[in-house]
Amino acid sequence: VTVRVVCAQLDPVLLDLPGNLARAADAVATAVGRGADIVVLPELVTSGYLLDSTDEAMSVAITPDDARLAAWRAPLRGTGSLVVGGICERGEDGRLYNSAVLLDAGGVVAVYRKTHLWNREKRFFTPGAEPAPVLDTAFGRIGILVCYDLEFPEVPRTLALAGADLLLAPTNWSELPRPAGEQPPQVLNARMAARANHVFVAVCDRTGTERGQRWTGGTAVIDPEGWVLALPDEDGYAIADLVVESARNRQTSTVNHVLGDRRPDLYRL
Amino acid sequence: VTVRVVCAQLDPVLLDLPGNLARAADAVATAVGRGADIVVLPELVTSGYLLDSTDEAMSVAITPDDARLAAWRAPLRGTGSLVVGGICERGEDGRLYNSAVLLDAGGVVAVYRKTHLWNREKRFFTPGAEPAPVLDTAFGRIGILVCYDLEFPEVPRTLALAGADLLLAPTNWSELPRPAGEQPPQVLNARMAARANHVFVAVCDRTGTERGQRWTGGTAVIDPEGWVLALPDEDGYAIADLVVESARNRQTSTVNHVLGDRRPDLYRL
Repeated sequence: VTVRVVCAQLDPVLLDLPGNLARAADAVATAVGRGADIVVLPELVTSGYLLDSTDEAMSVAITPDDARLAAWRAPLRGTGSLVVGGICERGEDGRLYNSAVLLDAGGVVAVYRKTHLWNREKRFFTPGAEPAPVLDTAFGRIGILVCYDLEFPEVPRTLALAGADLLLAPTNWSELPRPAGEQPPQVLNARMAARANHVFVAVCDRTGTERGQRWTGGTAVIDPEGWVLALPDEDGYAIADLVVESARNRQTSTVNHVLGDRRPDLYRL
Repeated sequence: VTVRVVCAQLDPVLLDLPGNLARAADAVATAVGRGADIVVLPELVTSGYLLDSTDEAMSVAITPDDARLAAWRAPLRGTGSLVVGGICERGEDGRLYNSAVLLDAGGVVAVYRKTHLWNREKRFFTPGAEPAPVLDTAFGRIGILVCYDLEFPEVPRTLALAGADLLLAPTNWSELPRPAGEQPPQVLNARMAARANHVFVAVCDRTGTERGQRWTGGTAVIDPEGWVLALPDEDGYAIADLVVESARNRQTSTVNHVLGDRRPDLYRL
């Protein structure tokens, strides 16, 4: 099957939960209007990123079954399409998680709580206790991970070994210095994660500035060789049609295989 | 300590063992003349790569203590400098290995037998049974790996976890198609291996063509953020001065650490 992935690169407003929910819902509607089978939104798209305290985070925290997320699901009605995006999650245990929710028209398909926390996130989020998931969907086997998770090669590798064809990664990538002419290092890293594991990778990053922090706008849809298939258009939508099962052919010569050539007995990890 | 690494990007002649030994010895002398503490030569620099049979490989196989390698060690005399390069190794077991030898003025410091074999190598080489090593030297803790090993993120990760500051990688990278303006994917991969593990990486690749196979000439010295410090000059020498211990500071924020933030309990590798 050919799967159309649309990443909607937004600029969430810090602490503006109703506005962020509405802007994301509009983006889902636009993406579905442009034929999306899978819509990817940024990390923490409902809350913004530069939260400064547990109180601030709690003030914009929601549960994955929050009724207001129906606005994201409405545009999916009558389609089999999926949307994944980041929320500041209030857990049933009262703790806060930096989570990605996967929704279809009917409700919540999966929730993944980010397992590697960056910097201030450690002040108010609890790291997830469950590994990043792989879900068998009508659009292939989808792995979900969030931002800093990607910096650990073990995570995309674990997802590929679990059968993922396509990784969906909501991110909020801080803008880092780089030499002229170079791509953002996080984009290069995502490309090499795709290549090392022969999976498609769809990253949805964000734009704008929060409390002095500039964001990278590094959204990209990447093929299993690590080449960029799509970057955001002027409206922020990166759109690519993927033959998702093609990721499963991991034979790189008559006698070589991306995963089969591993020597796990020699790794000390 | 500041360590000068010099990669000598050569064009070995297939099956010309005496000529290749001599050209590599000249390159070591030149590198030491230019102040090298560590000289890196390509993979299979004594034999060429596109060997076609066990007979061909056996005809150019040597042992790591072959007397002819004294020509590589001679320029090191009176220095503490090291040279690493690839040989077609005839083992004491009569088998053939694609090996990297590390030499100092006095003799053989270490031998590493490539553990991940690419394509035709599987026809005549036996894969190494021991993991890629980390060696404590006067120039820092040095990890050694060969070409296709780098494509497995587990290998540089294992070396970094074992304490490596600097990875030395003799390679013979086949030229792969790439979009205009893109670096060779193997170079990008080596850069991201450096960045993911916060280690220096010195890759010594080769140039030329053998039996229709074109080589990439992807030699690069890379810093622990993944940026390229040095590429080959017009004579093929990539020269960089590294503060090797700086790789050991793997703290990326007051509360983040490249290796300490790992979640090994969640990886299925």
